[in-house]
Amino acid sequence: MKICIEPIGYVHSPYKVKGEAPKQGVMRDKTGEIEILDEYLDGIYSLKEGQLIEVFFYFDQSSREVKLKFDHHSGEVRGVFNTRSPVRPNGIGKSIVKILKIEGNFIEISNVDMLDGTPVLDIKPYSDNLVPKE
Amino acid sequence: MKICIEPIGYVHSPYKVKGEAPKQGVMRDKTGEIEILDEYLDGIYSLKEGQLIEVFFYFDQSSREVKLKFDHHSGEVRGVFNTRSPVRPNGIGKSIVKILKIEGNFIEISNVDMLDGTPVLDIKPYSDNLVPKE
Repeated sequence: MKICIEPIGYVHSPYKVKGEAPKQGVMRDKTGEIEILDEYLDGIYSLKEGQLIEVFFYFDQSSREVKLKFDHHSGEVRGVFNTRSPVRPNGIGKSIVKILKIEGNFIEISNVDMLDGTPVLDIKPYSDNLVPKE
Repeated sequence: MKICIEPIGYVHSPYKVKGEAPKQGVMRDKTGEIEILDEYLDGIYSLKEGQLIEVFFYFDQSSREVKLKFDHHSGEVRGVFNTRSPVRPNGIGKSIVKILKIEGNFIEISNVDMLDGTPVLDIKPYSDNLVPKE
């Protein structure tokens, strides 16, 4: 079963090359932009400044072949599904950011951690209500 | 730009047909299973019982054409990127669940909200540390 999808937009980011981006956006407070393609512009209707969103994107510069990773921080070997590394079979990334401004096709966002040019796959409103109780 | 991906596994769920599944898994405490395909089994190495994970999956039974949705709850029209509806251009879903048991290729999970047979695209460890400060 092959699932083919197309970007709904692209990220404009201060991080231009691999290695520049932080591991997670919350680690640095850089702003960036999501440019929504014209045909998906209706999809952002009613999103608001100040709102937290989940941005789903595609790690288009990372290996798809790795299944096990050595974690330098913990000194442990982990399966890629126990990491948030860009190196993973389907290359789907997800970051939570805040909408700073919306102007036409451009959504200005906080805490960007994607590389410049990263394809955006989806956006969902963030909710802190979706975590199962321990 | 076309991005083609393949499932890493499939969901076994008590919800067999559209309309049976809850809007969000936290709304009901049904258990289900993720069956990991053999070629991706190394990827779940070191995942543990009791751990919260984000499961990324594909809404394979929903329209890809809708951009605006009428929300019956609020009475408002919203762009699909301001909803978590299965109806969305790239059909990517994401739920947070708890790992109850791991046996071979099978991960038993809490709070399942996917339909039976749903393709799984990715798994990441959940962290409550990834939300930008207000």
